[in-house]
Amino acid sequence: MDPEEFRRAGHAVVDWIADYWETVGQRPVTSQDPPGAVAAALPAGPTEQGEPVEAVLADLDRIVAPRLTHWQHPGFFGYFPANTSGPSVLGDLVSSGLGVQGMLWATGPACTELETVMLDWLADLLDLPKRFRSTGPGGGVIQDSASSAALVATLGALHRASKGRWRTDGVDRRYRAYASTQGHSSIEKAARMAGLGADGVRAIEVDPATQAMRPAALRAAIEADLAAGVVPAIVVATIGTTSTTAVDPVAEIGEICAEHGVWLHVDAAYAGSAAVCPELRWSHAGVEYADSYCFDPHKWLLTGFDCDAFWVADRGELIEALTVMPEYLRNAATESGVVIDYRDWQVPLGRRFRALKLWFVLRWYGVEGLRAHIRSGVALADRFAARVAADDRFELAAPHPFSLVCFRLRAGDEASAELLRRVNTTGRVLLTHTRIEGRYALRLAVGSPLTTEHHVDEAWHLLSTEADALLSD
Amino acid sequence: MDPEEFRRAGHAVVDWIADYWETVGQRPVTSQDPPGAVAAALPAGPTEQGEPVEAVLADLDRIVAPRLTHWQHPGFFGYFPANTSGPSVLGDLVSSGLGVQGMLWATGPACTELETVMLDWLADLLDLPKRFRSTGPGGGVIQDSASSAALVATLGALHRASKGRWRTDGVDRRYRAYASTQGHSSIEKAARMAGLGADGVRAIEVDPATQAMRPAALRAAIEADLAAGVVPAIVVATIGTTSTTAVDPVAEIGEICAEHGVWLHVDAAYAGSAAVCPELRWSHAGVEYADSYCFDPHKWLLTGFDCDAFWVADRGELIEALTVMPEYLRNAATESGVVIDYRDWQVPLGRRFRALKLWFVLRWYGVEGLRAHIRSGVALADRFAARVAADDRFELAAPHPFSLVCFRLRAGDEASAELLRRVNTTGRVLLTHTRIEGRYALRLAVGSPLTTEHHVDEAWHLLSTEADALLSD
Repeated sequence: MDPEEFRRAGHAVVDWIADYWETVGQRPVTSQDPPGAVAAALPAGPTEQGEPVEAVLADLDRIVAPRLTHWQHPGFFGYFPANTSGPSVLGDLVSSGLGVQGMLWATGPACTELETVMLDWLADLLDLPKRFRSTGPGGGVIQDSASSAALVATLGALHRASKGRWRTDGVDRRYRAYASTQGHSSIEKAARMAGLGADGVRAIEVDPATQAMRPAALRAAIEADLAAGVVPAIVVATIGTTSTTAVDPVAEIGEICAEHGVWLHVDAAYAGSAAVCPELRWSHAGVEYADSYCFDPHKWLLTGFDCDAFWVADRGELIEALTVMPEYLRNAATESGVVIDYRDWQVPLGRRFRALKLWFVLRWYGVEGLRAHIRSGVALADRFAARVAADDRFELAAPHPFSLVCFRLRAGDEASAELLRRVNTTGRVLLTHTRIEGRYALRLAVGSPLTTEHHVDEAWHLLSTEADALLSD
Repeated sequence: MDPEEFRRAGHAVVDWIADYWETVGQRPVTSQDPPGAVAAALPAGPTEQGEPVEAVLADLDRIVAPRLTHWQHPGFFGYFPANTSGPSVLGDLVSSGLGVQGMLWATGPACTELETVMLDWLADLLDLPKRFRSTGPGGGVIQDSASSAALVATLGALHRASKGRWRTDGVDRRYRAYASTQGHSSIEKAARMAGLGADGVRAIEVDPATQAMRPAALRAAIEADLAAGVVPAIVVATIGTTSTTAVDPVAEIGEICAEHGVWLHVDAAYAGSAAVCPELRWSHAGVEYADSYCFDPHKWLLTGFDCDAFWVADRGELIEALTVMPEYLRNAATESGVVIDYRDWQVPLGRRFRALKLWFVLRWYGVEGLRAHIRSGVALADRFAARVAADDRFELAAPHPFSLVCFRLRAGDEASAELLRRVNTTGRVLLTHTRIEGRYALRLAVGSPLTTEHHVDEAWHLLSTEADALLSD
């Protein structure tokens, strides 16, 4: 495809996306087609001769788009948001067009340096501890997701806990990871991938009212493990748990970690974005204790997946854990010791120029634009929670400090689950669910930049109407 | 950014990329600026109020583009290619615009099914064993890179070698991974991440002439380990090593693995693309023994990073190793057991809609277009190798079955290293280096769709001229 063909087809694809965004709110949020519908509609293989882009776009409309879950739909309230924005798409488009591979500083100097600077910008925006800045002993990097960040943190922690023997000897004794019962599933997955096994993870109990980790229970678990000859390697504290957005008491947890020399990783995948607003920074009290911290601009900061921002307080420790240097990657810049080679900060060797989308987002929105987006989400969640609280049939199931509201019908688990099924079947909204202290709860997470008061009110109207029907059955 | 603003700015960015591709050949392939030039040119943070896209594009031109290594430059002959193409960029643009998160089938049915079908298409194109197809016990998935594929394969292998205990108990005995001395650095990195330590990897000797693994040495290593109570977990055979594109004897290796029940992973990261051409499928003899196989369409099949195609012969085994199911991800489709949830096939939980770029590439080029690209690379490498072979000052340093040529000056290592430095300083080409049996060699890897006979001849002319100067010094 020569540049002129690309120019023409590229304009058509940009138009396709603009049209999609203009109309996404009118589509059903989710497909009701059974599994296999897409596969059945596709041919058995590509043609011998190529086809024009128009043919692919036609099939995109006919086969693919009707069977998507539309994450950018204003009625998408499921999971956590994975919001994107125009500037993010454009930054990512430049990245695709450049086709740069930033595994080493030498293979893309601007790719590496822009990333370092963007992570410093973000650290400032969130008011993270100074030691996370690249100008100090730490530094930031883009991971694909908080899962990979948890894995990388776990590996750094094992390197430290083993006093460096882990690199050569592997998991040669019993190490343990700690998180609350509400920690994300990726923490267990990381521990398993790192060779600790599911039994290598201790789930620490939470306060039933707040769903936040009980520091005393963490201390007891660490001390029991030490007494049994197990080596505590890493504690993962969460700011904004996936189930309910509970905030672990990071400062108290951090003191325990400091006392025992245990690596503290703070997982703020969803709620980290909130710290761009000074009034929400209470949630980040204690992050100065963290050895590593991550949050996902691809969740709630208008940057498309994949973009997890991950910082370490001591980059040397991380690099030592992960580096391997074969001859074919040796180069003068690396040997000078003055550059960052991000391949040593992550699982894969290769990497896209993902800092571009962050750069486009941070500049296009500016600090005030980013804050406005977060504040809008919080205000909309408050608005919805007020509706729930004012209706005797419903109850709030947990505090809602950010933009997620957990609630249920007082009539019980089965009624709540049936209500979820019914509202989702309308195709106007998507909500998901969780269980809190064993009890079923619906989750409404606000985050799409297209979502307005109108959409939140419509969601409430649907819930209220379906509840009428359901409770009178 | 509303849809109309996106449309306007999107056209401008598409034009920027088209212009870039039209002029990239006139830029220096690499920047000569010292480390820190980009960081120094950027402000300390984003502005309070947002800025227009035009301001960002201006800085892209002024600050970023001059300090890139241009991987799509027709004179880029370094490492392995990381080529992209117009259709790939467009497919990825659609993915960014949709902003779909395909962690579960339910969170993007078309995202999952298109990926499954594209991997089946690719398996057909490469004539891979039937058992890798999703219609059988296996199936394919897109990983970000061959590094992550090696990690996932290692984890599946540990699950098998431990008879399932690894999931809960972790690395509770000594396990071992095997690869040739020429296996990629990601194999050691995967073993270390999985908790085996660098000592858990045995580097098996190669035939000095071919640089391919010696099966007898593998057998001896496995038997010695078994005798010592170590559990052989995984063998990684390489089709197209990074240093010289050597091809391990996969059939003989596979027989040894089958005999001892060891997981065989085949890493064809670069050379897998060659198998779209029937005349190059000799390189894939023996892949029917593989438990897993991967190659990178993002290296030599016109698809932008990140796109590693990874298959397993038994998807059940992989899923069992990697799955974790918290309440908030439970859904009816998953519980029905008839859908694929790709989160269980990879390290991260979240995932982009990466199958779109493959779909665009496979359809736009068609089978013949893809074959033409591979054949062009092989022919250009042959052309270059003939020049080297015909010049008494030079010698070929290894066989060149694909599109990489390794060569050196007969005058020795220092002269060869100096020659590399001098040609790269011209800014017209980028070549990299390796060591083969301890001796320095230059590597010229063809792969960019922009590279023609003219560029290869220019590279030879530069090398020849600089050699004149150097040898007369």
